[in-house]
Amino acid sequence: MNDLHVLSTNAREAYYTLSSASAGQRNHALLSMAAELDSHADQLFQENQLDLDEAEQSGLATPLLSRLRFGPEKLKQVIDGLHSLAALPDPLGKTTLSRELTEGLALYRVTCPIGVLGIIFESRPDALVQIASLAVKSGNAALMKGGKEALRTNRALAACVVGGIVAAGLPAASIQLLESREDVRNMLREDELIDLIIPRGGNDFVRYIMDNSRIPVLGHADGICHVYIDRDADPETACRVALDSKTQNVSVCNAMETLLIHSDIAPSLLPKLAAKLREKGVRILGDEQTRSIIDCEAATEKDWETEYLDLVLSVRIVPSITDAIAHINHYGSHHTDAIVTRDQDRASRFLQQVDSAGVYWNASTRFADGYVYGFGAEVGIATGKIHARGPMGLDGLTTYKYKLLGAGHILAEMKSGDRKYTHVDLNRNCPL
Amino acid sequence: MNDLHVLSTNAREAYYTLSSASAGQRNHALLSMAAELDSHADQLFQENQLDLDEAEQSGLATPLLSRLRFGPEKLKQVIDGLHSLAALPDPLGKTTLSRELTEGLALYRVTCPIGVLGIIFESRPDALVQIASLAVKSGNAALMKGGKEALRTNRALAACVVGGIVAAGLPAASIQLLESREDVRNMLREDELIDLIIPRGGNDFVRYIMDNSRIPVLGHADGICHVYIDRDADPETACRVALDSKTQNVSVCNAMETLLIHSDIAPSLLPKLAAKLREKGVRILGDEQTRSIIDCEAATEKDWETEYLDLVLSVRIVPSITDAIAHINHYGSHHTDAIVTRDQDRASRFLQQVDSAGVYWNASTRFADGYVYGFGAEVGIATGKIHARGPMGLDGLTTYKYKLLGAGHILAEMKSGDRKYTHVDLNRNCPL
Repeated sequence: MNDLHVLSTNAREAYYTLSSASAGQRNHALLSMAAELDSHADQLFQENQLDLDEAEQSGLATPLLSRLRFGPEKLKQVIDGLHSLAALPDPLGKTTLSRELTEGLALYRVTCPIGVLGIIFESRPDALVQIASLAVKSGNAALMKGGKEALRTNRALAACVVGGIVAAGLPAASIQLLESREDVRNMLREDELIDLIIPRGGNDFVRYIMDNSRIPVLGHADGICHVYIDRDADPETACRVALDSKTQNVSVCNAMETLLIHSDIAPSLLPKLAAKLREKGVRILGDEQTRSIIDCEAATEKDWETEYLDLVLSVRIVPSITDAIAHINHYGSHHTDAIVTRDQDRASRFLQQVDSAGVYWNASTRFADGYVYGFGAEVGIATGKIHARGPMGLDGLTTYKYKLLGAGHILAEMKSGDRKYTHVDLNRNCPL
Repeated sequence: MNDLHVLSTNAREAYYTLSSASAGQRNHALLSMAAELDSHADQLFQENQLDLDEAEQSGLATPLLSRLRFGPEKLKQVIDGLHSLAALPDPLGKTTLSRELTEGLALYRVTCPIGVLGIIFESRPDALVQIASLAVKSGNAALMKGGKEALRTNRALAACVVGGIVAAGLPAASIQLLESREDVRNMLREDELIDLIIPRGGNDFVRYIMDNSRIPVLGHADGICHVYIDRDADPETACRVALDSKTQNVSVCNAMETLLIHSDIAPSLLPKLAAKLREKGVRILGDEQTRSIIDCEAATEKDWETEYLDLVLSVRIVPSITDAIAHINHYGSHHTDAIVTRDQDRASRFLQQVDSAGVYWNASTRFADGYVYGFGAEVGIATGKIHARGPMGLDGLTTYKYKLLGAGHILAEMKSGDRKYTHVDLNRNCPL
């Protein structure tokens, strides 16, 4: 019996309490978290500065340092986020099916929390508050492990989060911070107590988790996103969408990594588009046909399956929309893929056949985000097919149970034919 | 590269075709399956007789023999089932969210198939047709492995199923039958090609699958179902529900295994109820308090976590509804649990706090079934929290994708403030 078993047991107890708490009480916890964060601002900034100093000394790269920073602007965003989340409708207790099975026997499908979540997130400390608040709003308890560079900041943030939870009369163990890799290893063994693991990280990390736990995993794996420019695309729209998808922010999972262009439009479009991309500093790797149109380095097979997260783009010319779809389904990561075309039928085919969580028509892949979708925030972007898909907000953190209300109904009466199934939809909310 | 890799690749191709097929075409396949089964009735019965003969010679137990039998009555049920399933609404292409993100940019969440399923089912051969038809109706391809006792029957049934699929112009590889355990082992490795494994079997089997695959598993584990008789239960209702839950069919996952009774009502109710149960041949194992009221064998700690699937029942007396809920959440399998009470508030508390897929008030646990719920049929009863929960019908075999329709929208415009998020619900179906 290790510490993690005790922590998980406490989390489970906290979940039972949280899942029965009213929406008012759960929202009260979010608003109290906001107040705690506000009143501990100086302390938060001090702790963050200590993390930043240490990270700088140890030579952390500049983009990672900027993700680690938690200053007044981040604090304001986090506090605003908590207020917005508190204002969102309650995701729990929603009746999503109501049906009379036979006279006097009513079946309801009602949303409820998942239970205990194990969440492993990266160095960005504001993610702690975002994820913890989504968990509490949806009635789930969570064990959370952040990046070690942000340890002091995370401890200070977690203290405010737990302070808010306790102020609302809810259990402190609703959110617990883990601090070591050993904790994570032990957590993966608690399949009787933990219902879901959400690892935020690269493919290898997600696979490590899957290989070492029976607990279901909602993985946020690589984002190998594509833009496909169809033969009758509007050239200006094509350039806008491709440029934004690649360069608006290169270090995020919903940035484009591979550009596919129909061979009919490539000769006229590609030189212009390549010039615009290069103006932004993008290095282009092309297939043979691309290199017959513009001067660039050669792309290899490996490029089609690489998430650069950098100012690098692989380009391939395809003879048909069929080839574009096949390329995406084969090499992509089922995250987000866009088509640029003026033809609705061809757009429809692309949206139907591309096997990804997000399929876009004439829009940048950068829109794949829980806040953008109106979910308040997200715990990650799921690239699997099971449970939640795409940006996971409150709905992704709920499941449902079937409530059956009878008056002594038994199956023997149905089998004997004394009663018949009616299966009439009731269109009403579950009364309890 | 083994055979299973080729089969899985073919299944994936079949899925891409199936997922784009119209509802009419998918229903056509179901009706053609029914016609194929009807016209091959004699052959099916002959093959089944060969399986039965061999099973009898090898000494298969009588209940298993009866599950293996596929005669005219089963055939009629299966054919009727196919017609009912064809008549159900299409589970694909349903818009479940529609939202304007900003002017001219519309987000839709639309249901779609999961992809390629790996399904391992038990000796009952009619399950093959039920599962295959649910898969095809919901646009999924499936690799299916049945019990080895039913091999000849399964081959004959699969030939009819594939015949129906091909008659509708859909790919033969939509449904493929696996025949060996080695096939199953190899299937578990194809996590790039297979999206979901559904093992129907006991806890140990489901755990074996989870320990040996990265593919998500929707497990149908043990059914340790409870009936809790509250202090103010109507005695007659209590006896009806308990008797039906235990004895209507003892060998199924939704039968009651443990009876919990409030200590206030146990002295008056238990002797009567025990007599009725014993009339039906039920052997009772009780805790100490139970044994102070009725004469019976002693239940041990192990009994609370045993799925008897037999005429055996463990009985425990509890001092409060809180203890009943705690017992169920600790020892149960999160399948289906019922309370008998006249008090709505106490029923509400039980339905809220019991952490199971089915929570029933004054109704037998035996109602937990996809056909009973009006889902047409089921591929299994999921006892986990992720994706589908409880009886898994067509909805459980679907996921969704986000379709975003724009006119060259880019994120840079949102970040610059040139455009604002509107997040207005559109309440309309996705036009493509």
